[in-house]
Amino acid sequence: MVKARRFIFAKHFVGEPKEDDFRLAEEELRPLKDGEILVEAVWLSVDPYMRAYTVKRPVGTTMFGSQVARIVDSRSKAYPVGKLVVGHWGWLDKSIVDVEKQDFTGLPKPYIIPDFQGHPESLALGILGMPGNTAYFGFLEICRPRAGEVVVVTGAAGAVGSVVGQIAKIKGCKVIGFAGSDEKVKWLTSELGFDNAFNYKTEDIAGVLKTAAPNGVDCYFDNVGGKISSIIINHMNEFGRISVCGSISSYNADVSKMPEATILQPAFASKQLKMEGFLVTRWSDRWMEGINQLLKWIVEGKLKYHETVTEGFQNMPKALIKMLRGQNVGKAVVRA
Amino acid sequence: MVKARRFIFAKHFVGEPKEDDFRLAEEELRPLKDGEILVEAVWLSVDPYMRAYTVKRPVGTTMFGSQVARIVDSRSKAYPVGKLVVGHWGWLDKSIVDVEKQDFTGLPKPYIIPDFQGHPESLALGILGMPGNTAYFGFLEICRPRAGEVVVVTGAAGAVGSVVGQIAKIKGCKVIGFAGSDEKVKWLTSELGFDNAFNYKTEDIAGVLKTAAPNGVDCYFDNVGGKISSIIINHMNEFGRISVCGSISSYNADVSKMPEATILQPAFASKQLKMEGFLVTRWSDRWMEGINQLLKWIVEGKLKYHETVTEGFQNMPKALIKMLRGQNVGKAVVRA
Repeated sequence: MVKARRFIFAKHFVGEPKEDDFRLAEEELRPLKDGEILVEAVWLSVDPYMRAYTVKRPVGTTMFGSQVARIVDSRSKAYPVGKLVVGHWGWLDKSIVDVEKQDFTGLPKPYIIPDFQGHPESLALGILGMPGNTAYFGFLEICRPRAGEVVVVTGAAGAVGSVVGQIAKIKGCKVIGFAGSDEKVKWLTSELGFDNAFNYKTEDIAGVLKTAAPNGVDCYFDNVGGKISSIIINHMNEFGRISVCGSISSYNADVSKMPEATILQPAFASKQLKMEGFLVTRWSDRWMEGINQLLKWIVEGKLKYHETVTEGFQNMPKALIKMLRGQNVGKAVVRA
Repeated sequence: MVKARRFIFAKHFVGEPKEDDFRLAEEELRPLKDGEILVEAVWLSVDPYMRAYTVKRPVGTTMFGSQVARIVDSRSKAYPVGKLVVGHWGWLDKSIVDVEKQDFTGLPKPYIIPDFQGHPESLALGILGMPGNTAYFGFLEICRPRAGEVVVVTGAAGAVGSVVGQIAKIKGCKVIGFAGSDEKVKWLTSELGFDNAFNYKTEDIAGVLKTAAPNGVDCYFDNVGGKISSIIINHMNEFGRISVCGSISSYNADVSKMPEATILQPAFASKQLKMEGFLVTRWSDRWMEGINQLLKWIVEGKLKYHETVTEGFQNMPKALIKMLRGQNVGKAVVRA
């Protein structure tokens, strides 16, 4: 018999998630049926959306999320033993997966990861996976950047923001990033080619924007929401576009008492701004288009990546908490 | 010699505009040159945007705005004496107008008003003019309402909001309006056919929304911004659309200390909302399309209107102040 472990969402988070909000459960797995595969997690993902999504989910359910897993048994011809697949079946170290069953996420069904040409397979959870496509589609389709425009990214050193800024550079834009530590800021400008980057915790946002974007901001890719977003949006040019990817700054807030920030409507009306939120599932039918383009840019040396690796499946909660505290540079992953 | 009066923007407003923030000046007009017309104001417009736009304009300039005027002398064949024209040359009772000169507003150049089929010519400043087109294009082009959807309008009894709600009804939507008095609320439901209307000053916004829109809101036409908008936006459905026309609630605020309200980004990201601000000048090249459609609906009895008339050119400041206090129902105009 195969023993499998899973993390249960045991308590609703109050403020920052704590380790005892999760419970590790163990079970014996039954034999496979036709159309199923048995997979063993190799890499697991922790992402900011996990903090937000738990709010509406009942306690007692398995923590959701994506992983790269090796197929160790198979009763599906399309999924041979030994291959690595990407799937969204949650925080489990071993899983029985019905490969045809659509899960609740709206993401593509489990797929065998393509040839990453020597780059690590963990990228299937980052720049060559959901976060990469979030950056690719969410920035290009909603901001529709033009060469020469000024682009601002918050959460710029995260898994999504770091890709957005580099895509903006590829498209010929000037890129300004905001991140939460001097180390991240240095990485953005010295490694990733951002034109400017600032530590939002120590800098005067309005002041640095005036200097770095004296003619205003055309596109804003918003990972954080809240007060910093109000300042950036009030510094935008006519017909500016804002892509709302997330709202990390408020994820730990009580949903019945969301934070306040300077209102946006005066800037929207006078400057004819446009803001759109999105979920990457909107582009599920174009998934491999994004992955292939991002891989091409990596191979050409135009896109760089960094991963912050936590060792051990049992440390999933720790990895999530660290990432939500901003202690990652680039994509946060767990090696099972 | 012809004597003309004009209102000068004499002092920047602090909070609510006051009568002595304006100065009435008198001058003698020179003879006409070729291509010019002499016009005498018949109806003048006071609009919410006037409060917002003064902020960036120097004191000492003539107050801007639209009027319906009679041509009393002409050196332009296309503009014969006796005709009524709409123009944007400001708070003047008599004006010399170079009909070919493009003004700063971005609105269409002066035009002779079409046959309103018995309806008053003052409508060229309201439902058959800039506010009507603001409703027509700003709602239909940005919200893109579909039959059966739920539409919320704030500032619903104003010159723009009252038209938006009626267009939404024509398009088969359910319409909920918010306005600032019980009298306005009654007008919206009993005269204009709104499904529901509420006095935002006395009702619990979140509570009435839950009852009137139990399945959520699809389109929001926002005239007011601020706290009420945050509540409405947080009650929207996936892929909801928000058209930002104005931000009346903050027009009297100090621009360096804009009000705060509950942040919008969490709802934007999770529900994939879209919000766009606009100026009606964006559709200047389709101006008569809007006017003709609105006139057709009026003639068919599908669109109703109401005007709040102030008598006397000298009372322009009073009329503006009253309108900004919300003491108008429908369009506020001044009879010169």
